[in-house]
Amino acid sequence: MPRTVDVADLVNRAREGQPRAVARLISLVEDASPQLAEVARVLAPFTGRAQVIGLTGSPGVGKSTSTSALVSAYRAQGKRVGVLAVDPSSPFSGGALLGDRVRMQEHATDPGVFIRSMATRGHLGGLAWATPQALRVLDAAGFDVVLIETVGVGQSEVEVVSLADSTLVLLAPGMGDGIQAAKAGILEVADVFVVNKADRDGADATVRDLKYMISLGRREIPGPLWRPSIVRTVASKREGLDEVVGAIAEHHSWMVEHGELEQRRTHRASTEVEAIALGQLRSRLGDLHGGVALEQLAKRVAAGELDPYAAAGELVDGLRSDA
Amino acid sequence: MPRTVDVADLVNRAREGQPRAVARLISLVEDASPQLAEVARVLAPFTGRAQVIGLTGSPGVGKSTSTSALVSAYRAQGKRVGVLAVDPSSPFSGGALLGDRVRMQEHATDPGVFIRSMATRGHLGGLAWATPQALRVLDAAGFDVVLIETVGVGQSEVEVVSLADSTLVLLAPGMGDGIQAAKAGILEVADVFVVNKADRDGADATVRDLKYMISLGRREIPGPLWRPSIVRTVASKREGLDEVVGAIAEHHSWMVEHGELEQRRTHRASTEVEAIALGQLRSRLGDLHGGVALEQLAKRVAAGELDPYAAAGELVDGLRSDA
Repeated sequence: MPRTVDVADLVNRAREGQPRAVARLISLVEDASPQLAEVARVLAPFTGRAQVIGLTGSPGVGKSTSTSALVSAYRAQGKRVGVLAVDPSSPFSGGALLGDRVRMQEHATDPGVFIRSMATRGHLGGLAWATPQALRVLDAAGFDVVLIETVGVGQSEVEVVSLADSTLVLLAPGMGDGIQAAKAGILEVADVFVVNKADRDGADATVRDLKYMISLGRREIPGPLWRPSIVRTVASKREGLDEVVGAIAEHHSWMVEHGELEQRRTHRASTEVEAIALGQLRSRLGDLHGGVALEQLAKRVAAGELDPYAAAGELVDGLRSDA
Repeated sequence: MPRTVDVADLVNRAREGQPRAVARLISLVEDASPQLAEVARVLAPFTGRAQVIGLTGSPGVGKSTSTSALVSAYRAQGKRVGVLAVDPSSPFSGGALLGDRVRMQEHATDPGVFIRSMATRGHLGGLAWATPQALRVLDAAGFDVVLIETVGVGQSEVEVVSLADSTLVLLAPGMGDGIQAAKAGILEVADVFVVNKADRDGADATVRDLKYMISLGRREIPGPLWRPSIVRTVASKREGLDEVVGAIAEHHSWMVEHGELEQRRTHRASTEVEAIALGQLRSRLGDLHGGVALEQLAKRVAAGELDPYAAAGELVDGLRSDA
């Protein structure tokens, strides 16, 4: 039996700026501690203040370097910055590999910066579930800005960046970005495009391709429309980061003005609540009839005696009559 | 309102080998047709016969070429082969991009081969949900072998390949495979490692790394143990494919002998039934109180008035009292 934690005390210490308390709280939510609901309850009144920024892009575009440079830019404004580095490609490892994180070490001794790597727990919805909880911890602990960095742009990544108020999509010249971008649907999630390594050949072409794609994408989206901005950076030389911060601020103002910020945050909360509710329901499905209902149905389905929809119907009915 | 389809007739025609009937049935399940449950019911008695092979690996290892060569190898044995090419990196596009599929065109006129590209529908669990349904169609239509090919090895990909009886993981020399493999947890899902482009420098090193990793991995897995085999291929020259087919057959025999095949197929059915049940429950959650319950709760969570666990509890209680 795990030791019971004094959650209120832990939250107090996290809010006083103790990094170990912050880390401990994130571990509690990541490990699905039995005190999870208590943690969420104590944190709730302190949440809703942080500005949440998602940052994604293919391997090799300079994500870690850009994240680190962006952290510096916000620190220069006196803001406290939390970073959640999410790695959906590690389905089995208990903790994310720190590989690229060494580039973030310049911030390791800065008490105004907190960096955490997160790996998925190997189950469907692992990231969709744990990341908002960790975000909630950093928000309540008083970080002004939380950056959620994630590798690549796939299904899980899109889910992760959709937690953000503003999403940055990083590209680099000469990586076949145009096609990649269209393929991964990042047009739909990007609020700001950052063309990194902009001192290289092909940067102009990348910007041109993006402008063209943005012009195509505009027609299909209903409601008030944010036209994604495009910023050029050379993150390794710290060039262009103020412009990135400016573009994010501009997007933020636009969202506030159009009621979009509230809408995004409601959507984020809605996703979170739904994921928790479905997790509870899944665990009840697993518990039905002493935990054997699902397996017995699955055996009949595997044998071709029952179809999966009929089996699912039986399972859901069992849940209702069990209520 | 969509046209109602004569499902029994469609299934009959699919079983007679009409590719258009097969394609139509897959479209019905992919598009979540209202007749989905009916399709599943009519298909059920004909399922459970196909040998299901998963095939995955990073971009550039030669997945499409290998799939195509493997299709030829099975065709040479007189087997009918279905291919589901799953692309989890396309969260928004309505259909998967056919890019690499051009390499499969050699089979386009062979009535014993059916190839289908599938993209996720942009929602969590999209692939976990649609792929088994499509697999069920090909199984019932009498394909002896179904190959599920998927790009990369991330969370979604692992879920997809976990549908297979046997999983092939493709590697190529000189791509930092050792580290990549450890990172992505593919040791745990691979039944057969295929080192493609084995005529290149570094193939020996890749095989050595794999052997070392397999020796490390052995200790942690309980129950009867399959030690993943390693096969070298040069798929572009059609070299080594018979050995791949042999390794798959050996794994298949091993599974039958150890009761593992039944267990994997029960697990597959269990995942499928659970996904369908959760989909039904999610849709009921969304419908609560005329569809506004979740949004109202989410607004309170976003405002910090309520924590997400308490909100999820209210939602689940609402579902039960609604029963």
